[in-house]
Amino acid sequence: MENIRIVLVETSHGGNIGAVARAMKNMCLNELALVAPRQFPTEECMARASGADDILQEASVHQNLDEALVDCSLVIGASARLRSVSWPQLDPRECAELVLQRTVSGQVALVFGRERTGLSNAELERCNYLVNIPANPDYSSLNLGMAVQVVSYELMMASQHGSRTAPDTRELAGAGDMQGLFNHLEQALEDIGFLDPRKSDKLMRRLKRLFYRAEPDMDEIKILRGILSAAQGRKSARRE
Amino acid sequence: MENIRIVLVETSHGGNIGAVARAMKNMCLNELALVAPRQFPTEECMARASGADDILQEASVHQNLDEALVDCSLVIGASARLRSVSWPQLDPRECAELVLQRTVSGQVALVFGRERTGLSNAELERCNYLVNIPANPDYSSLNLGMAVQVVSYELMMASQHGSRTAPDTRELAGAGDMQGLFNHLEQALEDIGFLDPRKSDKLMRRLKRLFYRAEPDMDEIKILRGILSAAQGRKSARRE
Repeated sequence: MENIRIVLVETSHGGNIGAVARAMKNMCLNELALVAPRQFPTEECMARASGADDILQEASVHQNLDEALVDCSLVIGASARLRSVSWPQLDPRECAELVLQRTVSGQVALVFGRERTGLSNAELERCNYLVNIPANPDYSSLNLGMAVQVVSYELMMASQHGSRTAPDTRELAGAGDMQGLFNHLEQALEDIGFLDPRKSDKLMRRLKRLFYRAEPDMDEIKILRGILSAAQGRKSARRE
Repeated sequence: MENIRIVLVETSHGGNIGAVARAMKNMCLNELALVAPRQFPTEECMARASGADDILQEASVHQNLDEALVDCSLVIGASARLRSVSWPQLDPRECAELVLQRTVSGQVALVFGRERTGLSNAELERCNYLVNIPANPDYSSLNLGMAVQVVSYELMMASQHGSRTAPDTRELAGAGDMQGLFNHLEQALEDIGFLDPRKSDKLMRRLKRLFYRAEPDMDEIKILRGILSAAQGRKSARRE
């Protein structure tokens, strides 16, 4: 997650800058560049950053966009989906893949525009690609912080690709153990007077399906068989 | 994107509720449930909703979590990644895939906890799955609105790309039915002398996890409760 710069252009509200800092730090990004911010730093900015003050303190402030992008070999600008423009457009997932390919060899910038009007045409044309977040066509404008959060989240997901989901390390019951459970269950159901022999095949099939779906591990098999034994014991105790 | 309810538990700041409403509407979600919100509605709430007032106006307000979940057949709770707990955990992408499979046949809830402390253990245990957003291990707590945004964004992405797996059309047991099963199970285990009160919490948690994984439908709940009644002796008592 090195070599990735988040660039905010003429942000109006300090609170949004703070929210962006927090979102960045949550997603392991740390390089923030501000182009002509209207309010910075403000109290609300610090409050919304909520512990990501280091990002704000180290943020660079620039007079214009060119200055913030001078060392970047790839620039991607956030925009609503533009049907009229034939600029190459990515969704956040495609964007993350491209960015991570490129950070190996150089600096990448992700540019987010003004709260109300986004990036100007001239600014969009400074970008190699545009990224747009899929949204409700009737209500498509995301809050600035939210947009940064979504794009950063995809970077985080891409950087962790393949290594995140912990393997299931439980010692799952083998086929023989499951068979043992089913035999015990059938016997116990008979002992407690639940099983009607005429319908037992269908019922047992149903219960097997249920327990197969549950994918019990060995401990759980033992617990279940303990319960069955207790149910059988109570009955025989009553009978005696 | 129907049949998906966003549930916020004891949210402290009205502004966050507004941000959630906007994030939801951006991502084509519209059903918001608030459990004992501290401030609602407030001026900041309406300001942050920024045109998503309809979501706030139609939001339901509940006294407790159970009430907000009563008709839900799948409940997923947001939490930090828990290494100590072996509750089934999903990342937002896996979560979205599962949710879209299930909305065909029933109501799904995504539950988000308090700003500072998240969901309690008891609340997490009400969930079939947990969803956690990958984050900086040294700074992992996302703002509430941001967390809803990320999870909702993945739902939007999944709904646009189409789910790969066939939808599950079984009539799955609702949260209330599962609760009924667990109460019955606990009582039956006590009746047959299986439950050691000193260890019962841990054991019941384990059994809940097993049955949540099995995802029983309504017929299966009836069969399981029939077995429990038989073990308790009620069924044979009836026959006598």
